[in-house]
Amino acid sequence: MRTIEMNNGVVKLIDQRKLPRQLEIVECRDYRAVARAIKEMTIRGAPAIGAAAAFGLALAARESKAATRDELLRDLDAAAQALRATRPTAVNLAWALDRVMRQARTTDLDTHGLRDFVVAEAQRIADEDVEINRAMARHGAALINDGDTILHHCNTGPLATVDIGTALGCIIEAHRQGKRVHVLVDETRPRLQGARLTAWELMQYGVPMTLIADNAAGYYMRTGRAQKCFVGSDRVAANGDVANKIGTYKVAVVARENGIPFYAVMPTSTIDMNLANGDLIPIEERDAREVTHIEGVPIAPAGVRVGNPAFDVTPHKYVTALVTERGVVRPPFVENLRVILKQ
Amino acid sequence: MRTIEMNNGVVKLIDQRKLPRQLEIVECRDYRAVARAIKEMTIRGAPAIGAAAAFGLALAARESKAATRDELLRDLDAAAQALRATRPTAVNLAWALDRVMRQARTTDLDTHGLRDFVVAEAQRIADEDVEINRAMARHGAALINDGDTILHHCNTGPLATVDIGTALGCIIEAHRQGKRVHVLVDETRPRLQGARLTAWELMQYGVPMTLIADNAAGYYMRTGRAQKCFVGSDRVAANGDVANKIGTYKVAVVARENGIPFYAVMPTSTIDMNLANGDLIPIEERDAREVTHIEGVPIAPAGVRVGNPAFDVTPHKYVTALVTERGVVRPPFVENLRVILKQ
Repeated sequence: MRTIEMNNGVVKLIDQRKLPRQLEIVECRDYRAVARAIKEMTIRGAPAIGAAAAFGLALAARESKAATRDELLRDLDAAAQALRATRPTAVNLAWALDRVMRQARTTDLDTHGLRDFVVAEAQRIADEDVEINRAMARHGAALINDGDTILHHCNTGPLATVDIGTALGCIIEAHRQGKRVHVLVDETRPRLQGARLTAWELMQYGVPMTLIADNAAGYYMRTGRAQKCFVGSDRVAANGDVANKIGTYKVAVVARENGIPFYAVMPTSTIDMNLANGDLIPIEERDAREVTHIEGVPIAPAGVRVGNPAFDVTPHKYVTALVTERGVVRPPFVENLRVILKQ
Repeated sequence: MRTIEMNNGVVKLIDQRKLPRQLEIVECRDYRAVARAIKEMTIRGAPAIGAAAAFGLALAARESKAATRDELLRDLDAAAQALRATRPTAVNLAWALDRVMRQARTTDLDTHGLRDFVVAEAQRIADEDVEINRAMARHGAALINDGDTILHHCNTGPLATVDIGTALGCIIEAHRQGKRVHVLVDETRPRLQGARLTAWELMQYGVPMTLIADNAAGYYMRTGRAQKCFVGSDRVAANGDVANKIGTYKVAVVARENGIPFYAVMPTSTIDMNLANGDLIPIEERDAREVTHIEGVPIAPAGVRVGNPAFDVTPHKYVTALVTERGVVRPPFVENLRVILKQ
């Protein structure tokens, strides 16, 4: 199945907090359940939560008791607001909500027709995500050479999207094309998406890999054992600055220091041309327990003060290229992003 | 109490694997128990395991049934070999064993006298470590300004030594002198010495601190929230290259990129002038379970392949200065280390 699907008024999604121990499906029957799933990271990954937000609106449309088109739009607005508040950094979430709401407003459908339209539009967003990821995977795979070892941070595989994946999708595609690749999987503290999800996905696809503590990435890069870095992105600014999972910035700096190309892979919907640079991107601060506890087990003294930023910004000077569904974008990013976004 | 002590033929040490949940003392009654404690990291920290190794020899001297001086030296050699094999990267361990064995060989004491000598020499190594750390703390504290936030990696506090500490000793001393300091504590995966030990120690001393995932260190450095980096070292080469806990290299590269001074603190016994550069330092590969399990709980798919280097090498170009008990050593390190080691 896909990471997220909607059938007969039920949104089903893979519970990513249970992996790799068990593959469990969560069923959401109203938009609040979807918002909770996004907030609690039952589903995560920028493109996946974009689709989830759209399906959340679809559920809101179905559950609304509105008698008029205006009432329905008001109910949808309320749902969009609740869904938007779940994860402040991810631009895909806002992008998906804005797309559905904008189109809903511009149609002249009646209440019933509008309900169906919102459901269909959410489905289109999910289907398009799969197509977009296929295109990204092809563009990214072309950057990977036979024999490459690739450092990967966080999770950007099928689970981070509706299907296929972004950065990991490129690697899996290169493997599918018969290139011999090996992946160094950053475990990605604090939430361990690399250890829990990326390692699990690569094992499913039979891609050779080695799981490492994030701290070890520099050692492997400096000793010549990584030829590329591939990461995803939660938000890209107009100048090519990349907001991504905390720790990405360290990877990028050490990669450049060692002459290792650093690629960030994302759909063009992740690129926010209204943001001049990455320092304008709000950084979500998450619960201290993500740092102090692992699987409910305390690993730090009780009452310790914690800093837990979920993302960091990698300035564009460390980024070799951005890989999108429309092709590979190289510096100067401001100009080249404008060109590719106009296509 | 100190991290490690010997009284009446029993070596007592704080069980660092139980912290911060409980403060438990382990008693070792023969050198094999000490070797096991070093290997299993019941005791860790370069200076602490140097003292532990010396106390191990002291126990070996006491337990030996040798009737002659030569037989006793043979028994001590066997014990030294077992102790030496426990941790290949730490130079203090070899240094302490070599010091005791060399001096034991050069005395003309009889069997009984030699036994007492080895016990007394181990005690001298422990006492000297405390004095050395007091001196390092004074030199290092002078580098810290009122109001500094200091990024710290791994554990280098009293627990890493017989007492006082190396890098953390400097920070605690600056705090004791009345300087307002704040410590960003890298949790230090995979063994979480920062979360478990450093955070606990700083809370004991009342030093303001924030615990962070290692991945977040770059974010804090880039956003201007760290003014210094302080780390310890397990081995320093003649050119100033620093082997230290895995992840130190990433910290150092990102620190330099952001113009943040990077200080490594170690006793001169950690400096190995026989090694031309850090790439000659053997890097210990530790058990995969350190990465795949936390407190016995699996956090990665069963059967996953793991890379777990315990240390990395930070080339000297990233090191602002080495802080030793004899003073602060700045580049050019080859020349300045020779000068300070001759004093």
